[in-house]
This record gives sequence, C-alpha cells and structure tokens, in this order.
Amino acid sequence: MNRGTIYGLGLGPGDPDLMSVRADRLLRTARHVAFFRKAGRAGQARAIVRDMIPEDAVEFPMEYAVTTEIPLADPRYNAMLSAFYTECCDHLRALSEAGEDVVVLCEGDPFFYGSFMHLYSRLRDVVPVEVVPAITGMSAAWTATGQPITWGDDVLSVLMGTLSEADLLRHMQAADALVIMKLGRNLPKVRRALDAAGLTSRAWLVEYAAMPGQTVTPLAEADCDKAPYFSIVIVHGQGRRP
Amino acid sequence: MNRGTIYGLGLGPGDPDLMSVRADRLLRTARHVAFFRKAGRAGQARAIVRDMIPEDAVEFPMEYAVTTEIPLADPRYNAMLSAFYTECCDHLRALSEAGEDVVVLCEGDPFFYGSFMHLYSRLRDVVPVEVVPAITGMSAAWTATGQPITWGDDVLSVLMGTLSEADLLRHMQAADALVIMKLGRNLPKVRRALDAAGLTSRAWLVEYAAMPGQTVTPLAEADCDKAPYFSIVIVHGQGRRP
Ligand SMILES: C[S@@+](CC[C@H](N)C(=O)[O-])C[C@H]1O[C@@H](n2cnc3c(N)ncnc32)[C@H](O)[C@@H]1O
Ligand SMILES: C[S@@+](CC[C@H](N)C(=O)[O-])C[C@H]1O[C@@H](n2cnc3c(N)ncnc32)[C@H](O)[C@@H]1O
Repeated sequence: MNRGTIYGLGLGPGDPDLMSVRADRLLRTARHVAFFRKAGRAGQARAIVRDMIPEDAVEFPMEYAVTTEIPLADPRYNAMLSAFYTECCDHLRALSEAGEDVVVLCEGDPFFYGSFMHLYSRLRDVVPVEVVPAITGMSAAWTATGQPITWGDDVLSVLMGTLSEADLLRHMQAADALVIMKLGRNLPKVRRALDAAGLTSRAWLVEYAAMPGQTVTPLAEADCDKAPYFSIVIVHGQGRRP
Repeated sequence: MNRGTIYGLGLGPGDPDLMSVRADRLLRTARHVAFFRKAGRAGQARAIVRDMIPEDAVEFPMEYAVTTEIPLADPRYNAMLSAFYTECCDHLRALSEAGEDVVVLCEGDPFFYGSFMHLYSRLRDVVPVEVVPAITGMSAAWTATGQPITWGDDVLSVLMGTLSEADLLRHMQAADALVIMKLGRNLPKVRRALDAAGLTSRAWLVEYAAMPGQTVTPLAEADCDKAPYFSIVIVHGQGRRP
C-alpha cells in the first residue's frame, strides 16, 4: 500500500482569504486534520479554518500539557516536550502507513519559528512529508501598518521577545528595520530595550494582524504591560527611496 | 464618480498555486494590469500570471530605462528613477479617477524590498490604494532547502548583497540565521564575507525558488562567480530543539 503524505500546511496570518490556493485546496479536500492546541483550548489554527474543513474529516488535536510548573530552563521541560512530539509523530506515522494523507495546520509559515518543525525533524526520514509555505504573521503586521518594512539595502532583523534585554538592545542597535515576535509577558522588557535604543517613537504594536480584532498602535501610546500571543512590534526601515 | 482602487498585488514567489486566494481572485477578474519590466524584456511578474489574467484586460507595462550608464551612487540616477515613478503614478491616478480598479503586479510581498513602495508612497494620499501581502521569495527558498530557517529564539537577519563586504561580515557574525538577497554580481563578495564569518559550510544557494528551474545547492559546491536575479542565500539557525 502507498504511504500517505503528511502536509505541514501553512495557513498564513489568519484571514482565510490570505491562504494560498494550494493550502485552500488541500484543506477543503482533507480527510485527516491535525493541529496543536493548549489543553482545554479550542486551538487558534483550528479556529482559522473553522468553515473550511470537510464535515467528515477526522480531527487529531495534539494537546500541549499546561507547563507553568516546570520552568523553561529546566531539562525536564525539554524532555517532556520531546516525549510529546514523539507521541504525536507515532500517530501521524501510523496514519501515513495506513495510506492516509494528513494535513497538519500551521500558523503562518511552517518553517519560520513554527512548532511543525519538531514533527518534521522526526518524520522527514520516515514518511513522505511536504511543507506548504505561507504568508507570515509579520507580513500581515507590516501590511497593517500601511508602510513598507524595508527599502533599498535596509537590514531587517527578526527578534524574539524571549531574548534577554541586553541581547535585544544589541540587535536593535545593529539593524535598520525590526520585527519583534513572541511578546506576551515579554513586552515590558522589549519596550525598555526599544527605549534604550531610542526607537520607541518609530515602533508600532500590531495585535491580531489579519485576524478579527486587528489593532495597529504607535508603541509610545500602547499599554506595554503585556500583549496577546498574536502580536508583533514593527520598526520600519528608512532606506534609500527615489 | 467613485474612484477606482490601485491594488499592490503580491504574487508570491512564482508558483501560481502559492498565490493567495485573494490575489488569485483579483487577478482573474482584473480589467487593468500594471507591472514593471526592464525595457525590451517580458517582465518576470507578468510571466508568473501568464495564464491567469483575462484576455481583454488592459496592460500597462512600466518600463525601467536601461541604466548601466549612470552609476547607482550618482544623484542623476535617483532623479531619473524618481521621474519615472512619478510618470507611472500619473497614469495610475488617471485610471483611478476614471473609476477603474488597477492591479499592480508585485513579486513576492509588496512591502518587503519591493518596487511597489515607490508608487505607494506617491499614491497613498491621492487615490485609494490597497496592499495584498504575499509569500516572500525567502519563504519559498527556505522551504526548498527542506530545513526550518529558525528555531526557538534564533535571530534572523535579512541582508542585501549590495551592502559592503565589511557590513555583510558584521551582520553575518551577529545573527543566528541569515537570508541574503539581491545576489547577482554581488555573489563573489557575499561568498567572501561568508568565508570570513566561517559560515560557508552552512550556507545554501537557492535559485528560482518555487519557479520553473528551481535549484538548491550547498554554497561550497556552487559556482560563485555570479547568480541570477532570482536567487537567495540561506543559512539556517540552529536554536533550541526539543
Ligand atoms: C511560534 S511563532 C510562529 C510564527 C509563524 N510561523 C509565522 O510565520 O508568522 C508565534 C509568534 O508569531 C507572531 N504572529 C504570528 N501570526 C501573527 C498574527 N496574525 N498577528 C500577530 N502576531 C502574529 C506572534 O508574535 C507570535 O508570538
Ligand atoms: C527587490 S527584491 C523583492 C523581494 C520580494 N518583494 C519578496 O517578497 O521576496 C528582489 C530579490 O528577491 C529575491 N527573490 C524574490 N523572489 C525570489 C524567488 N522566487 N527565488 C529566488 N529569489 C527570489 C532575490 O534575491 C531578488 O534579488
């Protein structure tokens, strides 16, 4: 029997109209749909495709345990995650070996800071895997600001809010344009680093880019205590413009 | 009479199947289609949509003069480009004022190092303009390598081959993952900087990502004399991976 293909399906930033033609087609004909979610939550990726997947598709929610007890730096945290990903892959592999194609829903582009890569690295030598690239959350965010992110030979750096304040500052000072992701509880630290780099007046906070409830706020006017999971800070480049 | 909308339409990396559902729909119903091309060339963006635009759509090729005589640093170069963009905008504005929607074809994502921004900055306060984000060339390039570009809190920097060798080296040393665009005749310089940064063995050259003729080559094995316009160097991050 032919093995089925596991698709890492990039959904784009959230608006189904911004999904690729290929992703749209794969979704509307899917028989198996897998997606990550936090235990007890609906799952954001699943919510994006609410009205698109066939009624009789079989769903496979992959549930992250609630992990607030074990700190991220603890080796047990990594071991627990690793066991979780391996367990997910056992199921996906069994489906593939039974000849079934499976669509794995990925927010944004799967290979850009996505969780799918943890499945991908375990499956790629075992069963057929295909990755469908997609519009990133950051593209939707800079589009929402109504200004180009980069011009000419601007250097763009993409930073995670999980970096230390010193690392954030150093990278902010080196680049011309910035995208800062994974904000959440890291936003106060990101704000302090932007202040130190003298960049706050040029920074924008975009929440829920290309999703219902999208907001675009100058960072200087934003509440910087915390930000939702789907939020990005943008600093536009100012390169050569004829 | 209602004014028409000028759409900055991101086409994605080249494969029409990777266009967004929105871009696909706007193209297939377009009445006016504008696109940049070099004088005497067919135009890459126009080629991507070859089989998609309606037969009776009116085309507006915006032709860059051949500019090899005037060096990029010469102020006359900027002045010439600026006059060209203004001329294009006069025509687009007239169409909008006559009530016509116009689709302007953009390779990749319009706000990411795109030429559309030079029209956008001239039109945005004058007529209705809408930007449709898209999959970038770099997303297609890292997908083609079959490896995630970034993990955990990797820092990704996007560099243009037009930077000086010293600037390239400095930014290469600071980041975890790299995307280097605008290669062409800059590839030998980019290669020297990667050598100096000790990164050549981790670098990949991707030509024509998601286009006919796509190639993926370890940079160490590539001919580094020059590269085609549609080529990107990728250095993957190696961040935390449970
Ligand atoms: C684990 S990363 C995944 C990125 C995703 N693969 C992509 O291509 O955009 C999650 C982070 O992406 C950002 N993000 C993704 N989509 C977003 C959206 N539509 N609006 C705002 N932020 C978004 C947020 O900063 C979030 O913390
Ligand atoms: C002026 S920039 C435009 C970038 C575009 N707006 C995007 O979002 O990818 C042109 C550069 O993009 C890169 N590029 C864009 N699409 C590509 C593709 N499909 N394959 C390889 N390189 C590409 C090349 O490095 C090229 O020199």
